[in-house]
Amino acid sequence: MRFIAALLIIISLSLNAQNKDSITIKNISNEILMNGKCYSDLEFLCKKIGGRISGSPQAAAAVEYTFQLMKKYGFDTVYLQECMVPKWVRGEKESAKIISTKTYNEVEVSVCAIGGSVATHENGLNAEIVEIKSWDELHKKGKAGELKGKIVFYNRAFDNTFVMPFDAYGKAVDQRVRGASEAAKYDAIACVVRSMTGSIDKFPHTGTLHYDPQIKKIPACAISTYDAELLSKTLAFDPALKFYLKMNCITLPDVKSYNVIGEIRGSEFPDEIIVVGGHLDSWDNGEGAHDDGAGCVQSIEVLRAFKALGIKPKRTIRAVMYMNEENGGKGGDKYAEEAIKEKKKHILAIESDAGGFSPRGFATDMNEEKKNKIISWKPLFLPYGIYDFERKGSGSDIQELGKAGVPLAGLRPDPQRYFVYHHTEIDTFDKINERELKMGALAMAILVYLASEYGL
Amino acid sequence: MRFIAALLIIISLSLNAQNKDSITIKNISNEILMNGKCYSDLEFLCKKIGGRISGSPQAAAAVEYTFQLMKKYGFDTVYLQECMVPKWVRGEKESAKIISTKTYNEVEVSVCAIGGSVATHENGLNAEIVEIKSWDELHKKGKAGELKGKIVFYNRAFDNTFVMPFDAYGKAVDQRVRGASEAAKYDAIACVVRSMTGSIDKFPHTGTLHYDPQIKKIPACAISTYDAELLSKTLAFDPALKFYLKMNCITLPDVKSYNVIGEIRGSEFPDEIIVVGGHLDSWDNGEGAHDDGAGCVQSIEVLRAFKALGIKPKRTIRAVMYMNEENGGKGGDKYAEEAIKEKKKHILAIESDAGGFSPRGFATDMNEEKKNKIISWKPLFLPYGIYDFERKGSGSDIQELGKAGVPLAGLRPDPQRYFVYHHTEIDTFDKINERELKMGALAMAILVYLASEYGL
Repeated sequence: MRFIAALLIIISLSLNAQNKDSITIKNISNEILMNGKCYSDLEFLCKKIGGRISGSPQAAAAVEYTFQLMKKYGFDTVYLQECMVPKWVRGEKESAKIISTKTYNEVEVSVCAIGGSVATHENGLNAEIVEIKSWDELHKKGKAGELKGKIVFYNRAFDNTFVMPFDAYGKAVDQRVRGASEAAKYDAIACVVRSMTGSIDKFPHTGTLHYDPQIKKIPACAISTYDAELLSKTLAFDPALKFYLKMNCITLPDVKSYNVIGEIRGSEFPDEIIVVGGHLDSWDNGEGAHDDGAGCVQSIEVLRAFKALGIKPKRTIRAVMYMNEENGGKGGDKYAEEAIKEKKKHILAIESDAGGFSPRGFATDMNEEKKNKIISWKPLFLPYGIYDFERKGSGSDIQELGKAGVPLAGLRPDPQRYFVYHHTEIDTFDKINERELKMGALAMAILVYLASEYGL
Repeated sequence: MRFIAALLIIISLSLNAQNKDSITIKNISNEILMNGKCYSDLEFLCKKIGGRISGSPQAAAAVEYTFQLMKKYGFDTVYLQECMVPKWVRGEKESAKIISTKTYNEVEVSVCAIGGSVATHENGLNAEIVEIKSWDELHKKGKAGELKGKIVFYNRAFDNTFVMPFDAYGKAVDQRVRGASEAAKYDAIACVVRSMTGSIDKFPHTGTLHYDPQIKKIPACAISTYDAELLSKTLAFDPALKFYLKMNCITLPDVKSYNVIGEIRGSEFPDEIIVVGGHLDSWDNGEGAHDDGAGCVQSIEVLRAFKALGIKPKRTIRAVMYMNEENGGKGGDKYAEEAIKEKKKHILAIESDAGGFSPRGFATDMNEEKKNKIISWKPLFLPYGIYDFERKGSGSDIQELGKAGVPLAGLRPDPQRYFVYHHTEIDTFDKINERELKMGALAMAILVYLASEYGL
């Protein structure tokens, strides 16, 4: 009987805790859904500042804006963390054409320089172009001398059989990242990469590349999927067609920039830190709405909601706007470096960098014990449509923290629309739904709240 | 040992079945994601036919189009099921103004007639308007004679604290449905209803109303939420302002129309039927993309994918395009009436009528035993992001089947964006994402496949 009585007390305490938590979470939900500021904050970031590639005036404006915003919301501490970042400038709009004498046609196509690319000659370049669908094909044609003096056209499409478009991206993006140096090994003079999307549309998708330091740097651009299909079909008819490409992008010396950090100090365990963040830089061609303005304003919203409701977290919570995720990751590196120097312990780092869509769960990069603790909170998440904690791959800004042993979580919104907008001129504010954006902030607020109450 | 051996055989058979099913489902997934036709079918329905209110030429065109489509896809039987439907015509574009002598201002506002409403006088009407936030307030003011000869302005907003916007809709829509007759009881001359959305925007949301046959019919319109806010603020400043409203909609005699039905005959239990459907009619102001062109083309897609893959379902599967869901439900009634007459047994009726967004699960209106059977298939659904089988409320076209004892399921896509578009001029094809639409078709195909293999 005593055992049963004790058990009942334990169960009842646990139910009370769960009940108290579910009430607090409902209050957070109401605050974010009714009074949330993340949508209008994002509007400012997208519409008054716009695309904010590292080292640009817009990136500096975004630093200042989010610094002032967190001050205004009354976080306990708001500060900048200096880091040096690359400065790559696109220059004037790129130009490209398919020139086929066989079809008596000259067709302009939509391209954009891949971030970090070198320019073409100021008059552009004009050469035959060879379509490549696999690395094997590249190496075979390269060794046969068929790529020398030519442009390589990587046209391996997204595999749309993947239910998760991020998996299709993972299988295709090597073309954009390694394509230039691999082609240059065989004396190709430039490369054109099919845009990283499963849609067929007119928008080129930029992104970053990696030049092998041992190999000559050649210009690299992304071509819209619509034009990639067109180019492929025209090549089938006229393999000798010429491709014209002009880009005058340039890499300038590194410049000083900043992570922006806002903090609410923990009431019981101030030396245990929970970080929630997104990256403040974006590509220059759009407004960086889904990638990753959304993650920034959602992270600020988490702390704002706590503040507005007077919730005093037991552990310290920080919103971090990382600089330079897109083309260097210097901000994430810097934050991790400083975090390791600090005596304070990071118990959880969360990133939102998969778009401002309706949330479904969190990727969890952590040991089983900690993951199971998060899964034990599932009943508190389910009323908000958050059910999936099984995937891996949390976010690139927090990877270095992860290597230092910090448990990582990545917000996982619905993934189906992400690669429609990703790294294009249409990643703009009007593609954001207010409720979806707020639900993502709410998902992170719930995780932050529970981790701050119970540790991990 | 024998027991264990037997157990191992059972487990292994069950794992084999699960494995075979997961392979078939992956094939269905690949077929729909790679070769699916629902997106282009919907483009035709929206762009070549458009809004298709019952009794309109567009509704007739949609009947013909989907009939031909199912023929083309080679379903075993395709046929029409006759039903009589109401014919309500909006007439020329409605006009409404706030006229305030105190602000020296005349402001045009966005309104649309609520479906089924009577017209105003051909010159419109012009009267004082009284804002009402609750039924109590209506009755109090009505009894005090304050509504006589005036317009009632129902301005109870969506409660955005609901995580599920459908719940907010459920709590607000009584204003649109009952508002006119309730106001007419107190000799009001018209009613203006705040649009059924949690967004603030310029688009009036139409819908249907119910006139109490004992009460005089007065004109009823929906006003955009932006203008509802404006009207409310202007009223606070100038309670004597006049509201001008002109609508010349009309209800004509009922006309003949059709449900469109396509069928693949079951190979083992042809007399057991699984129905999957959406409603073919839509409101006249938009293109009926999410509501409910999506549900129609998804239902056809399910059967098309089976046919394309040569899957022979054990049970008979039917795609049903119900006519007249929006303002009468005559098609759903007719289908149920005929189904009850038929000797064949309906083992499951599924509807998709909550938008073409990424699917999350199915509402299940059925007994616990059947629901648990569906839940036992959850491991097969989870790789496709389908996890929730707990909610109620399957779909209005299949309600009558439900009353006859048929288990019902309603596709539940992500709900956050639905009421941005619902019943407005912006419910158009460009608001549909191809992958989301296909994932919804896939979710239904999985459920149909499993129910046809294992019964319910």
